[in-house]
Amino acid sequence: MNRESLLLEIRRKKSFLCVGLDPDILKLPAHLPKNAEGVKEFCLEIIKTTLDSCVSYKLNLAFFEALGWEGFKVFEEIVASIPKSHFIIADAKRGDIGNTSELYARAFFERMNCDAVTINPYMGSDSVKPFLNHTNKWAIVLGLTSNEGAKDFELEKVDDQYLFEKVLKSCSDLGSKENMMFVIGATQAAHFARIRQIIPQHFLLIPGVGAQGGSLEDVCKGLLNDDMGILVNSSREIIYASQDEDFALRAGEKSRVLAEDMSKYFSS
Amino acid sequence: MNRESLLLEIRRKKSFLCVGLDPDILKLPAHLPKNAEGVKEFCLEIIKTTLDSCVSYKLNLAFFEALGWEGFKVFEEIVASIPKSHFIIADAKRGDIGNTSELYARAFFERMNCDAVTINPYMGSDSVKPFLNHTNKWAIVLGLTSNEGAKDFELEKVDDQYLFEKVLKSCSDLGSKENMMFVIGATQAAHFARIRQIIPQHFLLIPGVGAQGGSLEDVCKGLLNDDMGILVNSSREIIYASQDEDFALRAGEKSRVLAEDMSKYFSS
Repeated sequence: MNRESLLLEIRRKKSFLCVGLDPDILKLPAHLPKNAEGVKEFCLEIIKTTLDSCVSYKLNLAFFEALGWEGFKVFEEIVASIPKSHFIIADAKRGDIGNTSELYARAFFERMNCDAVTINPYMGSDSVKPFLNHTNKWAIVLGLTSNEGAKDFELEKVDDQYLFEKVLKSCSDLGSKENMMFVIGATQAAHFARIRQIIPQHFLLIPGVGAQGGSLEDVCKGLLNDDMGILVNSSREIIYASQDEDFALRAGEKSRVLAEDMSKYFSS
Repeated sequence: MNRESLLLEIRRKKSFLCVGLDPDILKLPAHLPKNAEGVKEFCLEIIKTTLDSCVSYKLNLAFFEALGWEGFKVFEEIVASIPKSHFIIADAKRGDIGNTSELYARAFFERMNCDAVTINPYMGSDSVKPFLNHTNKWAIVLGLTSNEGAKDFELEKVDDQYLFEKVLKSCSDLGSKENMMFVIGATQAAHFARIRQIIPQHFLLIPGVGAQGGSLEDVCKGLLNDDMGILVNSSREIIYASQDEDFALRAGEKSRVLAEDMSKYFSS
């Protein structure tokens, strides 16, 4: 999906909601089997009820890999089932030396036909570049994450700036606002202004609203730009809204409430 | 596998060779099918002929994921086929927020029964810790990698030290020499002395000898300790020693030559 199509979808729905599919078999509703098939049914049902209120789905690979190849198969089946109107993110946090990153890019963009994959920048530019050579596909580079450990390295000072700032600058030079986004945690409000100084136009993928303590209001005040320019992810709050047979219905409701909150930030 | 068993195996064989299984279907011998089954046969044959000269196998997930779930299934089958005498490394470069890293740990340690998984430290301590809670399992944290891009962030100065030094210090405090190793590229000889000052006793996983330009002599001079303390990986040089039907035979020969070179560094 290209940037223009994503922008159109966001404006049409007045929503920049990304639904995070992190299906932990220990948290599946009681009536679903605790295996890959259960995970598949869980995700497909949630996709049906959230499709109209979100513009994107983010699937975290860890939850699928934990089930081995059967989980990976179900990951592929779920991705294939999502309509092309929605921006599909493989939250895989991959990255390796150049020729190996190219294989990861082929895996997620060609084989699995995801629109985007999250990338860990630690190994530097040659680990990021191979993800930028695929038309209408996106690298979403970890910038400043939402977790406690973000302070360990991302918030270390390199010269007169934080490491994450250096990452935003260096990586944004490798691609463009048409093929690169950054992950910025909703819990990092103190840094939002500086982030938008460095990358005013790039889309940001924002986890950490809800369960992790970030506020949608802070995120919108600090990070929205003229194109909206953000995808706000919510996982647990939506997919575990209920653990009964009505889980999909409740997930749909929760998704609509979040989208309704977002609609207030659209000018018309 | 625990540290003692690994040390015994290294001393018994006078080899600290790790064979890297990075099976690119474009490089498989002509007579093998260019699919997951071809990859499986390729790897299983190479394992047979290299088993006696190496102590470890490192499987890079990118090459398996590029084939989708069929590749992931073959990854699991190959891992299951490797004798328990050998230290099995999933070169996956994973890392995520705490609860998600725990799922990756479960995937690679419990479901797939690998001994170790490579970890990207960018997101900080809570992304590393979950890999340290599994008995006789290892986190192998990226320190200073062998690629060109290592200079972009790993070799940035944080206060009076390089970022990778900060990573070695912080992460080594989280675990011990019994459950943590670090990746140090063979091409980074200028930093070997400093690395052994910071982590004198930890095992190091060392890629970059051969195709990437690192020298076994530099690595041994700079990084061996009293317990040997290194696993030197070779991938392309071994597995693509021949692209004809004799590929496994030639891989075995190449593996023995490398092990023979290593045997000179053992005192008795």
